[in-house]
Amino acid sequence: MKRRDFLTTSALAIGVVGISGCYKEDKSYKDVNINRGKVVKLKLATSWPAHFPIMGTGVDNFAKSCGELSGGSLEIKVYPKNILVPALQVFDTASASQIDAFHSGVYYWKGKNSAFSIFGGMPLGLTSEEMITWLKFGGGIELWRELYGKFNLYPLIGGSTGPQMGGWFKKEIKSVSDLKGLKMRIPGLGGEVMKKLGVNPILLPAGEIFTSLERGTIDATEWVGPALDKMMGFDKAAKYYYKGWHEPGSILEITFNKNRWEKLSKEHQAIITTASEAMTANMVEEFRYKNAKALQELSNHIEIKTFPKDMMIEAKKALDEVLEDEAKKNIDFKRVLDNYNQFVKLNTPWNNISTKHILDIRG
Amino acid sequence: MKRRDFLTTSALAIGVVGISGCYKEDKSYKDVNINRGKVVKLKLATSWPAHFPIMGTGVDNFAKSCGELSGGSLEIKVYPKNILVPALQVFDTASASQIDAFHSGVYYWKGKNSAFSIFGGMPLGLTSEEMITWLKFGGGIELWRELYGKFNLYPLIGGSTGPQMGGWFKKEIKSVSDLKGLKMRIPGLGGEVMKKLGVNPILLPAGEIFTSLERGTIDATEWVGPALDKMMGFDKAAKYYYKGWHEPGSILEITFNKNRWEKLSKEHQAIITTASEAMTANMVEEFRYKNAKALQELSNHIEIKTFPKDMMIEAKKALDEVLEDEAKKNIDFKRVLDNYNQFVKLNTPWNNISTKHILDIRG
Repeated sequence: MKRRDFLTTSALAIGVVGISGCYKEDKSYKDVNINRGKVVKLKLATSWPAHFPIMGTGVDNFAKSCGELSGGSLEIKVYPKNILVPALQVFDTASASQIDAFHSGVYYWKGKNSAFSIFGGMPLGLTSEEMITWLKFGGGIELWRELYGKFNLYPLIGGSTGPQMGGWFKKEIKSVSDLKGLKMRIPGLGGEVMKKLGVNPILLPAGEIFTSLERGTIDATEWVGPALDKMMGFDKAAKYYYKGWHEPGSILEITFNKNRWEKLSKEHQAIITTASEAMTANMVEEFRYKNAKALQELSNHIEIKTFPKDMMIEAKKALDEVLEDEAKKNIDFKRVLDNYNQFVKLNTPWNNISTKHILDIRG
Repeated sequence: MKRRDFLTTSALAIGVVGISGCYKEDKSYKDVNINRGKVVKLKLATSWPAHFPIMGTGVDNFAKSCGELSGGSLEIKVYPKNILVPALQVFDTASASQIDAFHSGVYYWKGKNSAFSIFGGMPLGLTSEEMITWLKFGGGIELWRELYGKFNLYPLIGGSTGPQMGGWFKKEIKSVSDLKGLKMRIPGLGGEVMKKLGVNPILLPAGEIFTSLERGTIDATEWVGPALDKMMGFDKAAKYYYKGWHEPGSILEITFNKNRWEKLSKEHQAIITTASEAMTANMVEEFRYKNAKALQELSNHIEIKTFPKDMMIEAKKALDEVLEDEAKKNIDFKRVLDNYNQFVKLNTPWNNISTKHILDIRG
């Protein structure tokens, strides 16, 4: 809403209730924004199919919540992938002001700036709660907003998946050498690490992964966790389900066109920010609950496996190389990585004597 | 706000903007609640001193957020402890409709119904994220609302402290036998367990704990975690700081007088609910960040210790006895405990292969 509209309408409304005589004197009345007559409409495109569980329903609920909180004055229409914009074009389309906002995964945009991948999560790194604490209290989101600002975008945390699984394998991995030549669908920093360990990382559209795994065109795939993986039917195509390491706390985003964001009223900005914080917490909890349920159902016909120790040692080395190489090439990557590492250094001693300790002793 | 007021004022306002001609036709206009002229004022008392760090500032921000989100139409005035109501009278006062709401810790009310202590957290039990998932997805909050309903109260989750520390000890605890006769300030289920291990649990007002510990009137005390404990100066009175076990995920509450809650508009209820969810997430993150900072500062002059293994084995046995005894005495306690245990059973296998696994391997 434009400031001019705001002033006109509220002046009018106050005048009128004054005259009509039904307004009782109240000291705080002057602070009340009663201008709810104009509906602000925003188009938000996602990278998920319509009502996709947890992530898609999460953003549906976020949009509904913005409507409720604003007394209907903020109407966010959610467009599932490929309806208004192709799934992976949402970043460019919002940047070009053709849509107002999008809900997606940060790791998709590493081609724009490799530094973005760190905001999306780090292999062998921070969990969801830790990632969000880094972003909100450790300086992460300021850097994210600065770098997205160059694309005329303003990001908010838009949920998190919690820890993801390591993926589905048709054959057991007993040593790092079993990875040599393995064809696996795995994107992002995890994919780069796996490549250094001998894996041949394959990129595939979501709709082709199951068939490729079932027919043996690929040997392995990662996806998310029990709840969403079960929906994809991967338990019918591979027997070994490995514990995760490469996405311990992946962050999703609700990102606005920056000009559009700045033109929103303070009140609508507050509504969107608070609704996105509530959505983020709800999503982590919903993933936890539904993953636990799905794991229970999967457990009788699959085998949960731990990657061998030598592989994890090699993965850590490979990750350090990948990060070092990228930091040399891209100063933004170095800045974000340094800020991230500073938080890790602060967080680790406390996490070790609190959350990790309680998980160790409670049995 | 009353329905009659709503109808009158909105009819008026709509009429007026229609006449003035500044209202442009918009299909969704009819869904917009423009009745923001009347301010709903609520009195919320807390059990903390004014602007008490993290917990107190958390509820201050919650109240501010409700004001912003509602365009100023919802005004929650926060009364620190003993201003309007003594710290531990907030439950009764809200129950008796003398205040509208309170912000406190659930474990304070076990005298009303021992079952309430479980909603506040379980020794050697769930972390904050797990507790909140149990409450929201596992049926916990429905039971909580049912049992609080008997006191004319309606609870919402009002934050969480994250894992708390085991406490400050003047002498090292090398075996469970070192606990015999030890005078320790420790309330709640943790205190009951410690009593079975030979501790003499002492209840003390917050203002007397430091002096009692310094002078040796008590031998040990627990409080919260590094950030708040440092403020109390406990590091100047005792050297040994023990890792936690008895409060892995304590839940705070924002509880409303039930009649008052039911009379709030759907919109104000949505605003309060969403703001409380955002507040809860923010509090857990703020505790994590500030505890990590404080631990860094404490680390050069105190010793972090782990309770001996024999003590933790005895503590588990003692806890089982305490829970079993209480379940026999109180059917509500049994119902809540059964529901809690059902969630634990569901959650544990998933947590072990996800969060616990990543904390184990990332080093």
